[in-house]
Amino acid sequence: MEWIEFLLYMIELFGTIAFAVSGAMIAIERRMDLFGIIFLGIITALGGGTLRDVMLGITPPRMFYNYEYLFVAAICSCAVFLLARCFREQYKKNTLIVNHIINCFDAMGLGIFAVSGVQVTIEAGYGSNAFLAIVLGMTTGVGGGILRDVMSHTIPFVLRKRIYAIAAILGAAVYYLLYRFSVSTTVATLIGIATTFLIRMLATKYEWSLPKAL
Amino acid sequence: MEWIEFLLYMIELFGTIAFAVSGAMIAIERRMDLFGIIFLGIITALGGGTLRDVMLGITPPRMFYNYEYLFVAAICSCAVFLLARCFREQYKKNTLIVNHIINCFDAMGLGIFAVSGVQVTIEAGYGSNAFLAIVLGMTTGVGGGILRDVMSHTIPFVLRKRIYAIAAILGAAVYYLLYRFSVSTTVATLIGIATTFLIRMLATKYEWSLPKAL
Amino acid sequence: MEWIEFLLYMIELFGTIAFAVSGAMIAIERRMDLFGIIFLGIITALGGGTLRDVMLGITPPRMFYNYEYLFVAAICSCAVFLLARCFREQYKKNTLIVNHIINCFDAMGLGIFAVSGVQVTIEAGYGSNAFLAIVLGMTTGVGGGILRDVMSHTIPFVLRKRIYAIAAILGAAVYYLLYRFSVSTTVATLIGIATTFLIRMLATKYEWSLPKAL
Repeated sequence: MEWIEFLLYMIELFGTIAFAVSGAMIAIERRMDLFGIIFLGIITALGGGTLRDVMLGITPPRMFYNYEYLFVAAICSCAVFLLARCFREQYKKNTLIVNHIINCFDAMGLGIFAVSGVQVTIEAGYGSNAFLAIVLGMTTGVGGGILRDVMSHTIPFVLRKRIYAIAAILGAAVYYLLYRFSVSTTVATLIGIATTFLIRMLATKYEWSLPKAL
Repeated sequence: MEWIEFLLYMIELFGTIAFAVSGAMIAIERRMDLFGIIFLGIITALGGGTLRDVMLGITPPRMFYNYEYLFVAAICSCAVFLLARCFREQYKKNTLIVNHIINCFDAMGLGIFAVSGVQVTIEAGYGSNAFLAIVLGMTTGVGGGILRDVMSHTIPFVLRKRIYAIAAILGAAVYYLLYRFSVSTTVATLIGIATTFLIRMLATKYEWSLPKAL
Repeated sequence: MEWIEFLLYMIELFGTIAFAVSGAMIAIERRMDLFGIIFLGIITALGGGTLRDVMLGITPPRMFYNYEYLFVAAICSCAVFLLARCFREQYKKNTLIVNHIINCFDAMGLGIFAVSGVQVTIEAGYGSNAFLAIVLGMTTGVGGGILRDVMSHTIPFVLRKRIYAIAAILGAAVYYLLYRFSVSTTVATLIGIATTFLIRMLATKYEWSLPKAL
C-alpha cells in the first residue's frame, strides 16, 4: 500500500505549507523582517505538533527528526515574503482575496493536523484513551496558531474566530471513532479532514458563530 | 480515613471551580464567544497543573486521566456564561461586587493549587528537594493565571497584583515545612491553604504592595 | 584542568547575570513592582534553558538542581531595582546609555547561552544530530527573551531586532562544527561566544537588518 503512505505524507506536508503560509502572512502584516517571517511561519506550522509531543513525553519532539517539515515551512515562508515584496501593491489592495485564500489553506491545515494529532497519540500507545486522543488532536490543530498569535501580539484567533477549535475537535473525534470501528486509515483520515474543513468553510460562509455573554 | 481523602478531593475541585470562574469572567470581559469562555476557563483551571506535570516529566499530564476536573471547569465556565447573559444589566453594573467575589474565589484557588502542587511533587518522588517542591507549588498556583492573561492579551496579573505569587510561595513553603515535620496531611493542607488565602485577603484589604522602581 | 571548568562556569554565571539584568530593566520600564522585576529577571535568565530541558526530556529541568543560577538572577534583579530607585533621575535621563550597556550584556548572554545549549544537547547524548543541537542552542539563547517579551506584553524582540536569532544560530553552529572537529571545549566555547557577540555588536553598530516585505 505504498501509495497510501505517500498520500498521507503528502497531506501532512500540505498542512505544514498551509500553516506556514498563514504564519508568514501575519508576520508580514505585523511588519516583521525576513527572519521574523520565517520564524513565525515555522512556529505556526510546527508549534502544535511540538506541544503535543511534549505532552506525550516524546522528547526530543518529532520535528527534530523529520527535518523536511521544518524546511518546507521555511521555504514557504520565504516564498510568501518574495511574493509579497514583488507584488507589493497588489498584495496591499487585495487583502480580502488574500484572506480568503489563507482561510481555505488554514481550514485544510486545521483538519490535517487535528487528524494527525490523533494518529500520533494512538501510535504512542494511548489509543484506548479517547479523551486524550481528541484533546491532543485539537492541540495539534490549534496549538501552532495560538503560539503564532501570542507572539504576534493578538488575542488568539481560536478564542475569537467562528467555530474554529470546535471544528478541530469534531474532525479529531470523527477520525477517532472511525479508527475504533476499524475503518481503514486512509478513509478515516480523509473523512476526518473533510469534517473539519467543511465545518470551517460553512461557518465562514454562513457566518455561524457562538453566542456571546454581553 | 476515607473522609479525609474526600475532603482533599473536594478542596481541589473547589480550586478548579474558583479558577475556571475567574478565567470565564475575564473571557467575558474580553467579549469572547462561548467557546472562548469555556477554553479560557479550562486553561486557567488546569494550566498550572499541566505546566507542573510537564516539568516533572509526568506525561501525559494528569488532566488527561482525571477528566472530572476538566468537566467541572467546562461546566462552571458555561454557568458563568449563562448567568452573565441572563443578568446582563446587573452584571455590567455590579463589576465591583463581582470582582470582589472573584478575588475571594481566586485567593482560595491559589492556596489550594499551591499546596496540591507541592503534594504532587512529593508524590512524584522529589520530596527531598525543598526548592523544587516550593517552586512547583507556586507554578501550579500561578501558571494557569499566567496562561489566561497571556492569551487574553494582558500583562500577567501575577506581575502586577499585590503580593500574589509571594502568597503562593508562602503557602507552599508552610505546607512543605509541616510535611517535613511529619504533621498530618490534612492539617498541613488546611494550614497551607489558609496561609495563602489570608495573605491575599489581607493584602487586598490593607492595599499592601511591593515598592516600584520608578 | 580545574581552571577551564571554572572559566566555563563563570561564563555561564555571567550569561545569567546579563539576561537577568535585561529582564529586570524591561520590568522596570513596564512599571512592575519588586516581585515582577525579580520574576521577569528569573524568567529571562532561566527560561531558555528550561525550554531546552523540557524539549530534551530532562525533567525536572536543571534550574531546579543548580540553585545558584536562580539566586544569582534574583539578586541581580534586586540590584537593578535598587540602582534604578536610588538613581531615579539619572536612570530616566540616560536611557540611551542604559540601553547600550544592556545591549552589550544581552549580546554576551546570547552567545553564552547559545553555546551552552549546544553543550547540554551533546551531553544529553544527541551529539550526532547537528540540527537538534543548533536549534536547541538557538532556543536556549532566545527562549528566555521570548518569554520575557510575551509576559511583558511586547512583540518578541527576536522577531523584530536586527540579526538576533541568526547571531545565536551562527554561534551555536560554529561551536558545533568545532566540537565535531575535536577542537578543545574551551577554545570552541570562546570562539562560539565571540561569533554571536561580534555579529550582534556589528549588526547594532552598522544597523544591519533583514529586508521587510511591505
